[in-house]
Amino acid sequence: MSENLQQGIIADSIPLFAGHPAHELLPTAALRRITAAAWDAPDALRMLNYGDEQGDPRLRAFLLERLRRNEALVIDSSNLMIVGGSTWGVEMITRQLTQAGDVILVDAPAYRDALHIFRDHRLEMQAIPIDAGGIIIAELAERLARLQAAGRAPKFYYAVPNFHNPTGITLSLARREAIVELSRRYGFVIVEDDVYRDIRFSDAIPPSFYALAGGRDVLRLGSFSKTLAPGLRIGWLLGAAEWIQCFVDSGWLRMGGGANPFTAKIVADYCHSGDWEAHVAWLRGQYRQRRDVALAALRQLMPAGVRWTQPAGGYFIWLTLPLLASVAVLARRAEAERVYFAPGTDFFVRHIDGAQHLRLSYSFLSPAELQRGIAILAQLIAALIAD
Amino acid sequence: MSENLQQGIIADSIPLFAGHPAHELLPTAALRRITAAAWDAPDALRMLNYGDEQGDPRLRAFLLERLRRNEALVIDSSNLMIVGGSTWGVEMITRQLTQAGDVILVDAPAYRDALHIFRDHRLEMQAIPIDAGGIIIAELAERLARLQAAGRAPKFYYAVPNFHNPTGITLSLARREAIVELSRRYGFVIVEDDVYRDIRFSDAIPPSFYALAGGRDVLRLGSFSKTLAPGLRIGWLLGAAEWIQCFVDSGWLRMGGGANPFTAKIVADYCHSGDWEAHVAWLRGQYRQRRDVALAALRQLMPAGVRWTQPAGGYFIWLTLPLLASVAVLARRAEAERVYFAPGTDFFVRHIDGAQHLRLSYSFLSPAELQRGIAILAQLIAALIAD
Repeated sequence: MSENLQQGIIADSIPLFAGHPAHELLPTAALRRITAAAWDAPDALRMLNYGDEQGDPRLRAFLLERLRRNEALVIDSSNLMIVGGSTWGVEMITRQLTQAGDVILVDAPAYRDALHIFRDHRLEMQAIPIDAGGIIIAELAERLARLQAAGRAPKFYYAVPNFHNPTGITLSLARREAIVELSRRYGFVIVEDDVYRDIRFSDAIPPSFYALAGGRDVLRLGSFSKTLAPGLRIGWLLGAAEWIQCFVDSGWLRMGGGANPFTAKIVADYCHSGDWEAHVAWLRGQYRQRRDVALAALRQLMPAGVRWTQPAGGYFIWLTLPLLASVAVLARRAEAERVYFAPGTDFFVRHIDGAQHLRLSYSFLSPAELQRGIAILAQLIAALIAD
Repeated sequence: MSENLQQGIIADSIPLFAGHPAHELLPTAALRRITAAAWDAPDALRMLNYGDEQGDPRLRAFLLERLRRNEALVIDSSNLMIVGGSTWGVEMITRQLTQAGDVILVDAPAYRDALHIFRDHRLEMQAIPIDAGGIIIAELAERLARLQAAGRAPKFYYAVPNFHNPTGITLSLARREAIVELSRRYGFVIVEDDVYRDIRFSDAIPPSFYALAGGRDVLRLGSFSKTLAPGLRIGWLLGAAEWIQCFVDSGWLRMGGGANPFTAKIVADYCHSGDWEAHVAWLRGQYRQRRDVALAALRQLMPAGVRWTQPAGGYFIWLTLPLLASVAVLARRAEAERVYFAPGTDFFVRHIDGAQHLRLSYSFLSPAELQRGIAILAQLIAALIAD
């Protein structure tokens, strides 16, 4: 219908910005088979009608069992609900926990689209700098003290602790523990957006905020968008029973019923078939290979003075250009070559703080396209530095 | 997994409250066939990835063409977006148009779950009484004048103009015109929740607010939940191009992409196959028959003093008991017989105003169940009056 193949992606371009799974990594054949069989289930008609507000019961049961087994979480069915993707969760949490003018805490940089949702809700975002270990605790503690002195209490801290969007950084265990302690001292909730958890390239990730806090004052989001297919719009939310009940009792859930009954049933069948675990294991290898290709190309091709992160999972690498090399100029020149990246400015509450940065995604492109895109960028950056 | 067959429905009960389509009215075979074929389309992978923020382009094209053909609306592709059911639309509109403390206008009675969403957003709801022709214009005008005198301007009026939930009443043309005029004079938006439009038992429904206002300051919601299957979670929103763009540009849509790409593709294929129009025509006959059965049972069985509405479409009949017959007591006694209805109190901002009312739905039950449920209610009401 248009030049857009899908959300924001232009035909015959190299979309290094796209935090989407590559088409060839979507388990199309398995989903086709599962979907065809779903109609034969005795409860098939339920997937076509309004669903239980807390979400598909079989999918909830599967996720509970998996979370208990993999992380030894002490949770029961009152602690988990299905959401229509983590987006739905962020929107719902923001609406229920905040009012316009409330203060929240975010990273600098933080996930662009989450900042956008918080802006839509007219929240005051206090941005705390991060380094290679994640949010800097001394800065966070100081900001909290200052806010308290001004009589203000943040409602929540929004975190992407594993393979952070946009930097790929993983928050260290010590910092997670320090944040849980600060959350108790200052009475804020931790919104743990953990959608990249399963795209890890080794098993060494620290326990989640939810685990460290014993589930207290933590709302943790998971998603099938990165490990199955975003188009199904299915994720989940872990939280204290009172919080889950509060969301389930909201007008939004009462009016439309639980999240996406049709696709939730397909995801439940897919998970119960055992296919998901095998697919996730395979995906890790695929994304790891793409990351390796991207990092090798960066090492090989980028001019001196350019720095980048070394993600241990997830989708993203964060580049920092030398001072005076303008990312805005780079973006214009790259566009002329049909190469698109996500400019750093979008990821900061104060846009100017991102003027030297850009985010590359290795999730959507083939290894060959990644190499080509990075080669073009490297040339343009070298020219920019020489200017 | 539990006694609940689906959202709130208890096994072996007579759920006269359920505003759901009956399972036997869901076009299961056609959806099964369409879904199986969807994987063969050249663009099949798009349904599994993030989608265009404005929603599936083929579904938008179909709806545009249908709205132009059926209603001669002057609209183009900038006026329509896909939403994840009308619920998503109500939630999104409320968030973008209002802040906590803002005034909005609702009917008394009004759709319970919409009131719930507005309450979640901490809005001040001004409820205007309705009669057999819909909202009473003199009361609305007086309230608007009073609000203006107090320096307050309502953000929007939430209306279900066709086959109103909970009363089944259709708003008259003269009143629609008067409301459009008031909307201009006082500067409020009309949120036109028109999800029952296609479930009409004759062709004589007045033009929509959107048509009467030439699309100005009207946001009109449609849905496939009543005419296809709620579990697919697909609806649409009509509005001025600036409004649609504002929603499309929101953080919610940017983060998760457009509404439910997988099911939107299935609905698009279903619509383009031509099956939908035939299904809607058939559904009208089915719901009309159920309405006729319910009205006949009420006429035959209800004791004197009980009044009810005569819906010309939609799902609902609104009953009014004689004074002093308590609906709360009736609900308890009905529950003992496993008969459930929606108590009137839920549909009023000031609950007590609904103490003599109840809503019956004829959408979910078979004609035989409808007769049995109404017979039990009639007996209980007769006993209650005799008490």
